[in-house]
Amino acid sequence: MITGKNLIGYKLSGEGLDTFKSYNPHLEKENPTVFFDASLSEIEEAVLLASKAFQQYQFFTAEQKLKFFQALENEMLEAKKSILTCYQLESGLPLSRSESEFSRTIAQIQQYSKLFDSNQLILPSIDTAIYDTHQPKSDIRKIKVGLGPVVVFGASNFPLAYSTLGGDTVAALAAGCSVIVKSHPMHAGTGELVGNAIIKALKYAEMPEGVFSNLNGFSNNVGACLVNHPMIKAVAFTGSIKGGRALFDLAARRKEPIPVFAEMGSLNPVVIDNLSLLKNMNKWTDDLADSVTNDAGQFCTKPGLIFIKSGQNVDEFVQMLISKVKEKGFKMMVHPRLKGNFENQLDDLSKILNIERHKLHSSSVVMPIAINISGSLFLTHRIFQEEVFGPFCFVIICKDDAELIQCIESLDGQLTASIFVEDEFQNESIVKQWISIFYNKSGRINFNNVPTGVRVCGSMHHGGPYPASSDSRFGAVGVDSIERFLRPLCFQNFPDALLPDLLKDKNPLNVLRRVNGELSFAEIIR
Amino acid sequence: MITGKNLIGYKLSGEGLDTFKSYNPHLEKENPTVFFDASLSEIEEAVLLASKAFQQYQFFTAEQKLKFFQALENEMLEAKKSILTCYQLESGLPLSRSESEFSRTIAQIQQYSKLFDSNQLILPSIDTAIYDTHQPKSDIRKIKVGLGPVVVFGASNFPLAYSTLGGDTVAALAAGCSVIVKSHPMHAGTGELVGNAIIKALKYAEMPEGVFSNLNGFSNNVGACLVNHPMIKAVAFTGSIKGGRALFDLAARRKEPIPVFAEMGSLNPVVIDNLSLLKNMNKWTDDLADSVTNDAGQFCTKPGLIFIKSGQNVDEFVQMLISKVKEKGFKMMVHPRLKGNFENQLDDLSKILNIERHKLHSSSVVMPIAINISGSLFLTHRIFQEEVFGPFCFVIICKDDAELIQCIESLDGQLTASIFVEDEFQNESIVKQWISIFYNKSGRINFNNVPTGVRVCGSMHHGGPYPASSDSRFGAVGVDSIERFLRPLCFQNFPDALLPDLLKDKNPLNVLRRVNGELSFAEIIR
Repeated sequence: MITGKNLIGYKLSGEGLDTFKSYNPHLEKENPTVFFDASLSEIEEAVLLASKAFQQYQFFTAEQKLKFFQALENEMLEAKKSILTCYQLESGLPLSRSESEFSRTIAQIQQYSKLFDSNQLILPSIDTAIYDTHQPKSDIRKIKVGLGPVVVFGASNFPLAYSTLGGDTVAALAAGCSVIVKSHPMHAGTGELVGNAIIKALKYAEMPEGVFSNLNGFSNNVGACLVNHPMIKAVAFTGSIKGGRALFDLAARRKEPIPVFAEMGSLNPVVIDNLSLLKNMNKWTDDLADSVTNDAGQFCTKPGLIFIKSGQNVDEFVQMLISKVKEKGFKMMVHPRLKGNFENQLDDLSKILNIERHKLHSSSVVMPIAINISGSLFLTHRIFQEEVFGPFCFVIICKDDAELIQCIESLDGQLTASIFVEDEFQNESIVKQWISIFYNKSGRINFNNVPTGVRVCGSMHHGGPYPASSDSRFGAVGVDSIERFLRPLCFQNFPDALLPDLLKDKNPLNVLRRVNGELSFAEIIR
Repeated sequence: MITGKNLIGYKLSGEGLDTFKSYNPHLEKENPTVFFDASLSEIEEAVLLASKAFQQYQFFTAEQKLKFFQALENEMLEAKKSILTCYQLESGLPLSRSESEFSRTIAQIQQYSKLFDSNQLILPSIDTAIYDTHQPKSDIRKIKVGLGPVVVFGASNFPLAYSTLGGDTVAALAAGCSVIVKSHPMHAGTGELVGNAIIKALKYAEMPEGVFSNLNGFSNNVGACLVNHPMIKAVAFTGSIKGGRALFDLAARRKEPIPVFAEMGSLNPVVIDNLSLLKNMNKWTDDLADSVTNDAGQFCTKPGLIFIKSGQNVDEFVQMLISKVKEKGFKMMVHPRLKGNFENQLDDLSKILNIERHKLHSSSVVMPIAINISGSLFLTHRIFQEEVFGPFCFVIICKDDAELIQCIESLDGQLTASIFVEDEFQNESIVKQWISIFYNKSGRINFNNVPTGVRVCGSMHHGGPYPASSDSRFGAVGVDSIERFLRPLCFQNFPDALLPDLLKDKNPLNVLRRVNGELSFAEIIR
């Protein structure tokens, strides 16, 4: 049963006076459960618990964390049916999406379980003492440890994989941090059910109360209070530039500034080589139309700008793409608020472009659309570089190579950039020029691949130069995303008995270590 | 010859109207050279050059960078005599210090040369494609690349090892970033000479102009303009909390916020186990008195707070330590400005503590001092937790274990924390409690070692929770400090020919890579 209350450690609490309901886009009406915004005292209680729990949890072994993570997986599978049912009630996303997102959520837990199992999460580093009589050097050893309690903001467009037990939460938990989730109000019920599964797993694995709490908040104040709390040591967010930047600014103005990893806006530019169209027109328009419209285009990696130089077959390509996007037909958006934003942005663009638009009489459904504009028009106004979250893209037809280069050089930082070129043209110097421009503007460059469908693996990078993310040095997908929540800690001249096991002379955990600069499983002889 | 001009790429330029001179603390008078603050147009020119140079330099191979770094080493050795002579004219630090700092500067260059030579600077990661018909996965590969042009602020207390070609500069250059140094005005001549050596090395290794520039600035405006410039992508700073925080705030308020790694204030608390005094009183008081007063205590790792529980031998220990600190005699400070700050802080403390002080009639020389206070007094006022930069420490005598715990729990983030305990008492639970408190408050915990004399090695961590540094996830010493200036870049489904060599199928550089989660030198078979 969904109570609408906050999960504060193992307690349910709904003291707040502000309430809200989630919305069913299919039925176009509110769901019945009343959710309680966390009150100031509830926030305080959750943070204190998280801080206390962190003091213990951070010292837990990989074996203990593995037990916890396996329990997370089990409890999620146990609750799968009720979670997916609620997901459907609270989101306009299709059933298939809820299934695939659930699988991804499980896969994200498993990737850390695997590292716990093989004890490969941290690479310890050891430089042994040098007993030179002139310049003796002390024994120096280093591991990484968790930053402290982390606040994770649930994402509107990923009720599972980037919310309550999404990529940010599991990375922070794997790092040894306690986590407070500020649940996304659009799917607060789903959040509560996932939160219940986490609490069960914590209890099963005998973890201290407070390693996880789930707070509701329709008001931005809940999140702001959390980010401002002195005991909070890091923040993870997925959403708009406006939202992410506001949190970043709050965190930077604290007495003790804390890191905010905000994965924000991206236009995910695509460059199509027009010489390659003949062989690929059908496949590429299929792939791109899918990528633009899939799940109503509500992906941070949705291609929003498709560039091509004018030439033979180009008009045909553009018309084919525009048609295929339109033919996808009505798409239901996650929530009316996102639908409203989408319509407003398209209204603004239509005015500028002198296009007539007919609004649909639905609170949730939108019509996919691709619009072609010239490269010279694209360069005139920054509005064409504002992300439109939904099933929309611009196709920008440039008059020559130089204009196309000018267009992509005008772009801000991006999560991804994609290049579509047939094999035989891949060594053209213009292709290398596109790559070298995207090299400094994006976190991932795709070749003949659409940017959506992010593979969850160690080599993936999901982040990019600002405003794609608030710190281009970190990403939000794959095991390396744990680095956001870890800091080095160094032990000098320590007696073996007092060192963490990862650093002990005999290497009792049999972990790979960097010893005097070389990777080794060897024991240390003092 | 020192010109006093700015090094903008390969050009000498002194257009600015504001000028200054450096100061000779030994002679208590200004040096003759007139230095020119960089003008706005000079700053613009240096940044444009740095940005252009970065576009080329970032793609240079490890082999090319090795040639450059070896040339850096050679040119520095070539210029050693003139650099050390100037160092002596511009700083109150002793000759032995300039020698050891020079050696450290060379060692810092060499640590990267070694990694270039073995091509171990970056660990590439590859996840190969999965051709499963249900859920095919693309080939994903990742390296790290430089952030872009970096501004490095020279440190007052390290004219060599943390200035023009100090740890920050070599880390940024190793990362593939171009560097603009905002030279510290106290040793601007030393900076120019080191800058000349860098320019010679760049020319020898045929690097593009603009990989390095050296700008003078007595005014804070020079640094502020650099940090605010949209083409600058990261900042490194070593100095006061006030200075570091000001740069952090500037960078956070930019349209595109950029990372600032500021290594700032630290009190470097030391806890002495009073049961261990009998065997160690002499050695420990010797070590601590040296650590507090060495080079006039002008180290970020100088122990500023020494805690001990009252008990047998404690009074004797405290008196012995206070005497030994005083017996070190007059110490010359780097610069009259630092001497002035030191005297002012001691005046303030003396008033609060009702101690009489006699000021010395010197612009440069100070008298080392250790002052004992009670734990209860320490807890009453935050002024006792303000860093006093110079040969000074508090010895805090706590009435019991609980008060000592309360004292160290009241501390902010620290670069280091040290514990002195005789072998036989190391397993006492109180020792473990001290360690667990310092675990979350410091970047390095020392055991029976003073915190000064930072060993430059891969396992060292020089950084810590705020305000020790502005981002506890990074450090400023050792090869891992390069992470401050690198970001991941991912290549999806790329043809082999267009991949960076580090990621090519045949592993042509024979570099260790993470392939499908396992470390390997193997070729990739597609």
